[in-house]
Amino acid sequence: MGITASELRIDSRRMKRDFEELSRIGATDNGGIHRPAFSEAHLKARDWFVQRAVRMGIKSHVDGAGNHQAILSCGKNDAAMLMLGSHLDSVPFGGRFDGALGVVAALEILDTVKEHGVSLNLHLCAVDFTDEEGAFVGLMGSRALSGRLPRQEVDLAFGSSDEFHQALARAGINRESILSAAAAPGTIAGYLELHVEQGTRLKDAGADIGVVTGIVGIRCFQFNFNGRADHAGTTPMDRRRDAGLGACSMVLKARERFMLNFPGYVVTVGNIDFTPGAFNVVPQTASVTLEFRADDIQTLDAMETAVYEEAEKAANGFGLDLTIEKLERTVPVHLDDRTQKSLSSAAEQMGLSNIYLPSGAGHDTQAMALICPAGMIFVPSENGASHSCREYTHWQDCVNGANVLLQAALSLAGARMLT
Amino acid sequence: MGITASELRIDSRRMKRDFEELSRIGATDNGGIHRPAFSEAHLKARDWFVQRAVRMGIKSHVDGAGNHQAILSCGKNDAAMLMLGSHLDSVPFGGRFDGALGVVAALEILDTVKEHGVSLNLHLCAVDFTDEEGAFVGLMGSRALSGRLPRQEVDLAFGSSDEFHQALARAGINRESILSAAAAPGTIAGYLELHVEQGTRLKDAGADIGVVTGIVGIRCFQFNFNGRADHAGTTPMDRRRDAGLGACSMVLKARERFMLNFPGYVVTVGNIDFTPGAFNVVPQTASVTLEFRADDIQTLDAMETAVYEEAEKAANGFGLDLTIEKLERTVPVHLDDRTQKSLSSAAEQMGLSNIYLPSGAGHDTQAMALICPAGMIFVPSENGASHSCREYTHWQDCVNGANVLLQAALSLAGARMLT
Repeated sequence: MGITASELRIDSRRMKRDFEELSRIGATDNGGIHRPAFSEAHLKARDWFVQRAVRMGIKSHVDGAGNHQAILSCGKNDAAMLMLGSHLDSVPFGGRFDGALGVVAALEILDTVKEHGVSLNLHLCAVDFTDEEGAFVGLMGSRALSGRLPRQEVDLAFGSSDEFHQALARAGINRESILSAAAAPGTIAGYLELHVEQGTRLKDAGADIGVVTGIVGIRCFQFNFNGRADHAGTTPMDRRRDAGLGACSMVLKARERFMLNFPGYVVTVGNIDFTPGAFNVVPQTASVTLEFRADDIQTLDAMETAVYEEAEKAANGFGLDLTIEKLERTVPVHLDDRTQKSLSSAAEQMGLSNIYLPSGAGHDTQAMALICPAGMIFVPSENGASHSCREYTHWQDCVNGANVLLQAALSLAGARMLT
Repeated sequence: MGITASELRIDSRRMKRDFEELSRIGATDNGGIHRPAFSEAHLKARDWFVQRAVRMGIKSHVDGAGNHQAILSCGKNDAAMLMLGSHLDSVPFGGRFDGALGVVAALEILDTVKEHGVSLNLHLCAVDFTDEEGAFVGLMGSRALSGRLPRQEVDLAFGSSDEFHQALARAGINRESILSAAAAPGTIAGYLELHVEQGTRLKDAGADIGVVTGIVGIRCFQFNFNGRADHAGTTPMDRRRDAGLGACSMVLKARERFMLNFPGYVVTVGNIDFTPGAFNVVPQTASVTLEFRADDIQTLDAMETAVYEEAEKAANGFGLDLTIEKLERTVPVHLDDRTQKSLSSAAEQMGLSNIYLPSGAGHDTQAMALICPAGMIFVPSENGASHSCREYTHWQDCVNGANVLLQAALSLAGARMLT
């Protein structure tokens, strides 16, 4: 007696074994993982992907951007492929679920489809994207595959040029191969990603699944306040041009301005840097690394004006010069409506409560959405903890997410009755 | 026809040649110098000291703390010595005069005394103290020589243990030799130091010479604010425990509190450090390196209470934990009255206007004052610039200072009529 495609479910125990195996790679004492892109642990996780594909009897290949692609030929000969995936790199000292869950689920979905001999109109491809977290270039792998990674960003990668070059070499790639890694037109029919929410909206709403409607645009800046280095013991307070004061003032004022003018949105100063940085020297320069996010261009523009104003006020208030560098910026992306509907229907069909919501975090999905219909779902994060060892999602939620993705994939890829 | 001791003057041209030679060692493009303790440039400056002593026909030796001592045997056989000196290390990217002027003047004074065959009751010693600026341990050389450098401070030196060990090795010393470098009792009869003011009080008063009455005590702290690392895109502003906000708030409030409660005094935050320091992660910890200075213990205590209060308020205001580390602290020192008088009289005798004033900066003199009568004079700094490439003192002021030091030294060492 056969089962229908709509009854198909992933193997929870097998997926759990995979997930736990992967969680041991780069594990930290406190339950998190440390797998920055191209680190030793990340390279081991990449090897794990290859071995996992071999275990289900398919080969994976590495593209010019270092992305692993494991293709299950379940479609017609000349069919395009539906990609499913996420990333195996982590922020420094991050959590086990971010990225890894999506990759493990993608591999598990392929294994499930293969095991049950499901025939589809499309091939399925499990993908592990390179450097999603931006150790060197944020969303590097997915943006390279979508052909939307500017040469300038690769040339100006974080870290020294040598460091970046050596990191790429460890994964067998280089700057030029990254820039020529774009997928051939028509080869990718769609992209689906499962990810932990990294927030508390699902928990707050009591929902099992979040269907992502779009992904915020991010603008990142460095505000450089320039004052004058002076002796800490001999320069009267009122004769100083202390760059640190401008920086600190701006950090506080930018937050106040956002809470007042942009409620519900976020602004973050993740780093601040004084030079010369000696305890007995008044800071000559102070740089503030600030980012904000919004789901439409108009709001992003208004935020940019607001933080520029606050920076200028802070500089003027303490007699400082100010220069502003624009760092990474991504545009907000709206995700494909039909794909959203497929994901929501799949959840409904399994009796899982679901809500539509935008993503405050950047994801590989936003790059893929530029070249194909792309969809994304979230599963609940305990306490919303993210980019932290405290990140945690109950296993049942992980399984729910994988099954919703499986069902949506089957629907989008045109599953026929199973034998 | 002989000249009297009171008519003796240093050789301005020879001293200028020395000063310029020294200024080229570790010179930066903008007219400053970069000679942190034990750096290559600092080691070259140390070599220069040895060669300069050789040029006047005396040998210098290096003590266990790396101090260079060039002794001119102009006193009686078993006499103690009057030391004159300062330091050749600089803050990172500092100025040419700080420390260097005092060393060059000391060597010049010895050369002048030797050249004129002056007989004294005391030997004279030109000294170059190690790491005055605290690249590793502030006032390391002078505190070691005075026997007042605690083992704990040497063990907890700034920088990694390895880095410190290797730095010491470059100067041929080690931790144990530093701790056993104390001068034998009775061998040092006094200490004199010439230094640039690093402020504008002499300029403001129109005075040529500042006779230092005492040296401020410094208390240095690290305030560690501990919050929670969270995703910058998915964590609402009102659910964050952003350590950076506490740190920035404290920086501003400590300044306001000082300007209100301690007018005329200084508080400085020279550095601030966020972890993990990524642009897309809410800071988990933020540390604030703060110091303040005052010329009496009661004021220092009141300041300590005030900054603790501000730190606690800042931590509470943003839901953060707070730990406080006490770093370096020095006690305020009153300088010997008789030595002050000698210095002032020497200036008067040469027709140089002079004022008495405390030093807002720490100096080797404060360590030496603990074991012998010690005195210090300042010469004017243009615009008060200090610890900066903008540091500048007119050459005539440098010469004036060296001559005042020479005359005071001759007086304190009991100069007799010259041949």
